Amino acid sequence: MTPAHHVNLLVSCPDASGLIAVMTRFLASHDINILDLDQHSDPQEQWFFARAAFDLTGCDVSLEHLVHNWTPIADTHRMTWRMHDRSQRRRVAILVSKREHCLRELLWRWEDHQLDCDIAFIASNHPDPRRRAERHDLPFHHLPVTPETRDEQESAILALVEEHGIDVVVLARYMRILSPRVVQALPHRIINIHHSFLPAFAGPRPYHQALERGVKLIGATCHYVTEKLDAGPIIEQAIARVDHRDTVEDLIRKGADLERAALVTGLRLHLQDRVLLHGRRTIIFD
Amino acid sequence: MTPAHHVNLLVSCPDASGLIAVMTRFLASHDINILDLDQHSDPQEQWFFARAAFDLTGCDVSLEHLVHNWTPIADTHRMTWRMHDRSQRRRVAILVSKREHCLRELLWRWEDHQLDCDIAFIASNHPDPRRRAERHDLPFHHLPVTPETRDEQESAILALVEEHGIDVVVLARYMRILSPRVVQALPHRIINIHHSFLPAFAGPRPYHQALERGVKLIGATCHYVTEKLDAGPIIEQAIARVDHRDTVEDLIRKGADLERAALVTGLRLHLQDRVLLHGRRTIIFD
Amino acid sequence: MTPAHHVNLLVSCPDASGLIAVMTRFLASHDINILDLDQHSDPQEQWFFARAAFDLTGCDVSLEHLVHNWTPIADTHRMTWRMHDRSQRRRVAILVSKREHCLRELLWRWEDHQLDCDIAFIASNHPDPRRRAERHDLPFHHLPVTPETRDEQESAILALVEEHGIDVVVLARYMRILSPRVVQALPHRIINIHHSFLPAFAGPRPYHQALERGVKLIGATCHYVTEKLDAGPIIEQAIARVDHRDTVEDLIRKGADLERAALVTGLRLHLQDRVLLHGRRTIIFD
Amino acid sequence: MTPAHHVNLLVSCPDASGLIAVMTRFLASHDINILDLDQHSDPQEQWFFARAAFDLTGCDVSLEHLVHNWTPIADTHRMTWRMHDRSQRRRVAILVSKREHCLRELLWRWEDHQLDCDIAFIASNHPDPRRRAERHDLPFHHLPVTPETRDEQESAILALVEEHGIDVVVLARYMRILSPRVVQALPHRIINIHHSFLPAFAGPRPYHQALERGVKLIGATCHYVTEKLDAGPIIEQAIARVDHRDTVEDLIRKGADLERAALVTGLRLHLQDRVLLHGRRTIIFD
Repeated sequence: MTPAHHVNLLVSCPDASGLIAVMTRFLASHDINILDLDQHSDPQEQWFFARAAFDLTGCDVSLEHLVHNWTPIADTHRMTWRMHDRSQRRRVAILVSKREHCLRELLWRWEDHQLDCDIAFIASNHPDPRRRAERHDLPFHHLPVTPETRDEQESAILALVEEHGIDVVVLARYMRILSPRVVQALPHRIINIHHSFLPAFAGPRPYHQALERGVKLIGATCHYVTEKLDAGPIIEQAIARVDHRDTVEDLIRKGADLERAALVTGLRLHLQDRVLLHGRRTIIFD
Repeated sequence: MTPAHHVNLLVSCPDASGLIAVMTRFLASHDINILDLDQHSDPQEQWFFARAAFDLTGCDVSLEHLVHNWTPIADTHRMTWRMHDRSQRRRVAILVSKREHCLRELLWRWEDHQLDCDIAFIASNHPDPRRRAERHDLPFHHLPVTPETRDEQESAILALVEEHGIDVVVLARYMRILSPRVVQALPHRIINIHHSFLPAFAGPRPYHQALERGVKLIGATCHYVTEKLDAGPIIEQAIARVDHRDTVEDLIRKGADLERAALVTGLRLHLQDRVLLHGRRTIIFD
Repeated sequence: MTPAHHVNLLVSCPDASGLIAVMTRFLASHDINILDLDQHSDPQEQWFFARAAFDLTGCDVSLEHLVHNWTPIADTHRMTWRMHDRSQRRRVAILVSKREHCLRELLWRWEDHQLDCDIAFIASNHPDPRRRAERHDLPFHHLPVTPETRDEQESAILALVEEHGIDVVVLARYMRILSPRVVQALPHRIINIHHSFLPAFAGPRPYHQALERGVKLIGATCHYVTEKLDAGPIIEQAIARVDHRDTVEDLIRKGADLERAALVTGLRLHLQDRVLLHGRRTIIFD
Repeated sequence: MTPAHHVNLLVSCPDASGLIAVMTRFLASHDINILDLDQHSDPQEQWFFARAAFDLTGCDVSLEHLVHNWTPIADTHRMTWRMHDRSQRRRVAILVSKREHCLRELLWRWEDHQLDCDIAFIASNHPDPRRRAERHDLPFHHLPVTPETRDEQESAILALVEEHGIDVVVLARYMRILSPRVVQALPHRIINIHHSFLPAFAGPRPYHQALERGVKLIGATCHYVTEKLDAGPIIEQAIARVDHRDTVEDLIRKGADLERAALVTGLRLHLQDRVLLHGRRTIIFD
């Protein structure tokens, strides 16, 4: 039995009449069966977004051929687009600091075949996560950093990213701010988990801020990293109720569960090509 | 300026390759712009479901013509389908008993233009809702019922439904079980709100059952009425947390909010042609 | 049969050993039955909070007598405290602008005996809410306001508050910022509903801000009004999930439901003496 | 510095006037500081429930002495009660079958000091969990079972429970029904996680049942095991939204997260002496 050959096509472009028909006609003309189709037209921005998942199994056409034929059509409509062959698993690097709950959750989901990717390496400014990485037979890089060595350390990170052909860098509670150089090198390819319901409590120590402000709900936010701190496009948010009996330690403990959940969901959506970007916003086809 | 002429097309049929292209090609061939398209293939049941919202404004084709052209295509694929001109507002009747919180919520949403329908009449086995109906200038029918007069009362309901050309009957906490005769006369056209998280606590006095069982969450379920009590396809469910301090009265009060929310959401989804049926299940394109 | 004579005692003071015993011993010494007792010690602030609900029915002691006996004990422990005879219903004024969904919800809850208070009057800077007020046989005051007449209008509000012996002013989507003069005159006696998940999106047009920022959850916050805009102690927050398909109008519609829910809950907690204040935070004994 | 010496006192008895004062007076008479006090009177059942957490540090009285002095008072009021010295960590055994997500979550929470107990051993009818147990340096017992050997296997379980002085047996997705003999030997000392929102979908394959019924929310229920299958007192329930796109595999995956959360919460509440039982219901002082 031939294995399935699934491809995801993501499209965004200025809105116009008939764009969905353009896509579906193109696929039908190659005898390709659409498995899943999602589309969204933003009436205010006059912008069109679509995601088609289709199956090339048994088709005569190759993905390269398909890309070749699609390109002029996409150009006509000024589409930003990509086709992703799902059998080409994305390569992921995980950066983490001392607290390992997010790393641990990612590794378990990955082992349980819930994250469709290869984890190429784990790196940390702390030595502790080595033990967990090795337990899962994953390469670990200890990259300590001081204000003086930040440039050097970030160069080491970028070199590893280059060397391993990394598609996505996940900041799994990596408590260092990456410099613009790193962010620019990996546009919309760095996914962070922030431990608050953004835009509330951006910056450091959000649980302390939340306690001080006396909010009744705390949250976590999974977002793409941009040059502006904690201001990148949001992929997923989770919240939980708290009350006056919760200490900062309780908020940190409850928040850890939210962080795990939001990061895993955000990364899964990204890996499944379900996230389109438009300015500061995301369109999520889930 | 010509008003928008929006039409919803709902389709379900045995799954096959290219069905989405069939739909989009058909619409494109009439120069019709698709506003929104949702599709779902159930891999287990091998069944295809789709919803297309499109705009006939400025098209040369009439809806009648479109239906005429679509019919043979749909027949080829053994489609169950309907096209609904959104300017043809559905006609709704509301049945209610003594407790008016759901009726009240429906009327307010309707006045606030959140429910796209005409309310043709309100009927009740109690006299009290008359005041509220009149406040909103809506016809009210007091249809008292005893075990002996049930047949007669239901005939009166059916006559009103017939006379007013009713599309949907909403049971807004109507505490009488309709006989199979009524249910059969209005297949998937009666929407009920049940005051529990079905299938838990079907039947009478669900909040008492919930208290006795000591659950930590209560719910409400909006569903189509079928001949089997509280077993029809579910459109929407809502839940809320409760604890040991909640008396039956508290559950009833908290549950009333869930009932209002779930019924309004369920009815809105129905009126917007977002609900497809497949056996006991609903596909919701929201 | 004698009606129940329920009293709520709220206490906050520096924490110390035996404070709960002080309270319960005092009540037991007057043969008073405690119905409900909640207590919280904040370990960081070293502060003690308690709420006792008790029943004077059948007791020989009057509330005045009880207050008299309790005062020296409370002084010893530097308690901030109050006793509230539940048969003395609080007097509430509602301020509203054009959008009436919160007003409408409050009125219905009140009619349904879910809010234990008297509504003394409704005032608005718009004429429209008069109709709703009159439907419920409640006094209505149209108090239009311009930047030039703000002082005068606020004096009119304060005069009405004085005249009617108002305990709580509810801002049910009153879209004007009250001057410090009004806030100072009614410390922790003004309850507002803000249409965002504070501290995110303080200030005007929060739903527009939320859409622009691309958040995945929206919220509403019920809080006491202080001089600093949208920064007063939070009583209750509610949230709901949104996605890219939601327009500003959708956010406003979904948010309206959150506002209704959070405001009603916040006001109910206040009326039931379940809210204690400590700096910017609330302790909620629910 | 002397370590804290915290004790929890749980009480339930027929309701009467002054019971809270009885408790607080008793503790005050021994110069004991109450850290936390919760109380609930069920008006319908006329039953009283209370939990006091207090600190014996620096007190002259021993716990034995306190128990001795308390016993006659408790007898007078026909109290069911227990005092639990928190420094005496409860001994827990975990039974698991093939799926390890709940086991894994428990072990991580335990390592992270979020579960205040000793895990004495892990047992399974499958060999696989051995590896995970050994990774955490915990004794593992492989106890395979067939219909013919059930009696024998359960005797082995009971012998291990006896030998290790087990306080609580946790069924972390242990897919075997325990015989009445085991349940009776450990009354309210076996905690199970059921993979549905009970009482909906009791019995086997609840996710298949949920899919077939077309519910819009799935759940998980943590409860004490009683002789009647899936009918014991509920400690905690969690729910999540699902839709028509979810296959049984999706429900199982989403449900696994609910199971982990509800089981950890339920066990934590039990270990912290926050659960009182009354018939089929639980009173949770959280």
